[in-house]
Amino acid sequence: MGGFDLPRRLVAEGLGTAMLVATVVGSGIMATSLTQDVGLALLGNTLATGAILVVLITILGPISGAHFNPAVSLIFAISRTLPRSNLTAYVLAQIVGGVIGTIAAHLMFGLPVIELSSKVRTGGAQWFSEGIATFGLVAVILAGIKFEQKAVPWLVGLYITAAYWFTASTSFANPAVALARSLTNTFSGIRPIDLPGFWVAEVAGAVVALMLFTWLLQPSTSSTISSEPKL
Amino acid sequence: MGGFDLPRRLVAEGLGTAMLVATVVGSGIMATSLTQDVGLALLGNTLATGAILVVLITILGPISGAHFNPAVSLIFAISRTLPRSNLTAYVLAQIVGGVIGTIAAHLMFGLPVIELSSKVRTGGAQWFSEGIATFGLVAVILAGIKFEQKAVPWLVGLYITAAYWFTASTSFANPAVALARSLTNTFSGIRPIDLPGFWVAEVAGAVVALMLFTWLLQPSTSSTISSEPKL
Amino acid sequence: MGGFDLPRRLVAEGLGTAMLVATVVGSGIMATSLTQDVGLALLGNTLATGAILVVLITILGPISGAHFNPAVSLIFAISRTLPRSNLTAYVLAQIVGGVIGTIAAHLMFGLPVIELSSKVRTGGAQWFSEGIATFGLVAVILAGIKFEQKAVPWLVGLYITAAYWFTASTSFANPAVALARSLTNTFSGIRPIDLPGFWVAEVAGAVVALMLFTWLLQPSTSSTISSEPKL
Amino acid sequence: MGGFDLPRRLVAEGLGTAMLVATVVGSGIMATSLTQDVGLALLGNTLATGAILVVLITILGPISGAHFNPAVSLIFAISRTLPRSNLTAYVLAQIVGGVIGTIAAHLMFGLPVIELSSKVRTGGAQWFSEGIATFGLVAVILAGIKFEQKAVPWLVGLYITAAYWFTASTSFANPAVALARSLTNTFSGIRPIDLPGFWVAEVAGAVVALMLFTWLLQPSTSSTISSEPKL
Repeated sequence: MGGFDLPRRLVAEGLGTAMLVATVVGSGIMATSLTQDVGLALLGNTLATGAILVVLITILGPISGAHFNPAVSLIFAISRTLPRSNLTAYVLAQIVGGVIGTIAAHLMFGLPVIELSSKVRTGGAQWFSEGIATFGLVAVILAGIKFEQKAVPWLVGLYITAAYWFTASTSFANPAVALARSLTNTFSGIRPIDLPGFWVAEVAGAVVALMLFTWLLQPSTSSTISSEPKL
Repeated sequence: MGGFDLPRRLVAEGLGTAMLVATVVGSGIMATSLTQDVGLALLGNTLATGAILVVLITILGPISGAHFNPAVSLIFAISRTLPRSNLTAYVLAQIVGGVIGTIAAHLMFGLPVIELSSKVRTGGAQWFSEGIATFGLVAVILAGIKFEQKAVPWLVGLYITAAYWFTASTSFANPAVALARSLTNTFSGIRPIDLPGFWVAEVAGAVVALMLFTWLLQPSTSSTISSEPKL
Repeated sequence: MGGFDLPRRLVAEGLGTAMLVATVVGSGIMATSLTQDVGLALLGNTLATGAILVVLITILGPISGAHFNPAVSLIFAISRTLPRSNLTAYVLAQIVGGVIGTIAAHLMFGLPVIELSSKVRTGGAQWFSEGIATFGLVAVILAGIKFEQKAVPWLVGLYITAAYWFTASTSFANPAVALARSLTNTFSGIRPIDLPGFWVAEVAGAVVALMLFTWLLQPSTSSTISSEPKL
Repeated sequence: MGGFDLPRRLVAEGLGTAMLVATVVGSGIMATSLTQDVGLALLGNTLATGAILVVLITILGPISGAHFNPAVSLIFAISRTLPRSNLTAYVLAQIVGGVIGTIAAHLMFGLPVIELSSKVRTGGAQWFSEGIATFGLVAVILAGIKFEQKAVPWLVGLYITAAYWFTASTSFANPAVALARSLTNTFSGIRPIDLPGFWVAEVAGAVVALMLFTWLLQPSTSSTISSEPKL
């Protein structure tokens, strides 16, 4: 498959992040408009988010890599999978796309174009949750690319499906999406003042995953290992 | 795989659209008969629709292309994937199939054969939702066919699963299905008078997607691009 | 892959039908013990049934074909995919397995070994539902085998997921499973006296599907067809 | 693919079991904090567990085999898929990982690091449920590896999705995870005193599955079998 130039790659990152955020924010609005049960609202939110991730990574991955996430772009820049000169442009495209996604969701549901969220998400338990969430996301991406590259869209979609439920923060795991979600005062929002805590935790989780999996994914070169089980 | 003649292709389009509409309408009736929670009703409706789309596109795609959707057939006629002389027949088969689907759902649930819906679905937010919904659907189909053709049934099923929740209109994204849904006064209905607004929005979204993705999916021919990331 | 002898094939049919029925009956009991919302109960029932079908058809299909269903075995006997001399043994294995499945579910939930169901499922709308349900199931199997054999477990699981919701009968679509479900007086039961109506409708739907798809799946041999779209 | 040395394999087993338990325990806490409906809570718990199993087995299977389960490691040691000298180390890694998983879930949700569960899970029906649950799990793994190795992560995830609903015990099916779940007094807990009953039932179910499937999966060598159906 031929390569794509930087403008197309940036449009892909921006469009993908916009559709991802529109799904996260929009499905949250839809869910809370239809039910009083917060568990059910999270279920609708989860289903939509997991499904769109599989779709977006499959259709935009071949163009830009389908990061949609500054923490992921950072990891790929560190590991030289993404040219380091592209990192800033990628992150900007993700931020712009994310904000457009929030605006699109608001327009679809007849809300003000932008609102600041008043939803409190702070404290050690939340930050630990975000660290774990992003650690897991990066672990899934790194190991998935190594062992089963074609399955990565599914792995990410399924991982986030689980992480919406097993972390106390519902797993933002994405600094650009977190920023975009600070601009909606609905189900999926986060107070702007709570963003820095999330960003630090997310980047820390991502870096720890990169370190651990750089070691873990390195097969032994010793020829004395003769019986390695593989499922 | 050998080719299929026009009668078989039209039967496939009609049968597929009938089963799709029977699922959308029938699962909506089932859901509202079992629960008072509208969020839960949409969840049942979503699950059934997403699942049947994967099935129908897989089993009928090799025969007719499995459009089941005049907006999709129009895009393929514009891009010459569908012979333009077949467009009218395809759309008629989809319309007839869709109406049969509504009738079948009504007979299964012991309702009058046909009813006119009184469900209001109009206004700028709804039309913007339908535009976005159909834009996304066509984007998924065009990019899916290019990058991962075998996955297209899954991508469409997952996309609609998400779009039922992230758009305010629950993502009809299909003029023939919208028409068929105007003939049921149940959960999934739409007032006949609201159809033209949906149709215009759907076709507009589809055409915008065709234009954007015709550009986006064109790899650079410049040999100076040497490091293109691919997930 | 080597062939399996008749005893192994019959054990596979019996075990698979037992696990399928244990899932249908058991998940219905679990669901109604946990929630008052019938829609939610059907959702749990659906999720479990769809998931186990993918699993059972994948792991037992290579041994016996994974019919678990007299209507399917009948269609394969008519089309000579199953040796006709095996039909009776297959059906008996499915019936015995189904009954064992109901018993196993009852033992897991501490209920009497066998009960007769008092759940009324009769009348034209129910029979029409069962006919449509089984028509669709056989259509999916026949077209799936032709176009995408490896996907058949997924297609059947997804089809039943949808059919639980779009048919008024919740899609039994299986005479042996229906019989086994007459022996439980829980969520998924059916009155014994209502069985014959279901059986007739199921076999009729299966035969209509065989006839229609025998025609539909036959590619044109005419060399004058030159432009056949394929998704 | 090269082999991985024992330290990496043990880290993979421990990390995978930790993430599995964090998901089971964490999603149970999240679910019960959001809804009063126990059926809905189990649904969220199920979705998260099934999804993370697909992910973890895919990304860690190539390193360690992705057992995360002493009953599975035992079966593989008996059948010499796992070197018997590795069994103790595997089981220890799974136990340590599981306990870490419970602790991580508690920290994410701001609960005490460790609690003893007071949730009663005992008696014949529960033990029979665990026996069936583990029988099915081992059956799926053995047959899945033989017929469709690449699908095993999906098969296990889908099987557990179903088994959460069709068994009265919600299918622990894993002695190390059961132990870890005795250390949380939340939705997914189990009284420490109830562990031995679960362990015996789980190992018994696993051994029965190994015996039955060792016979069932052996193709006939007789050349007189000429017509074996395959789906």
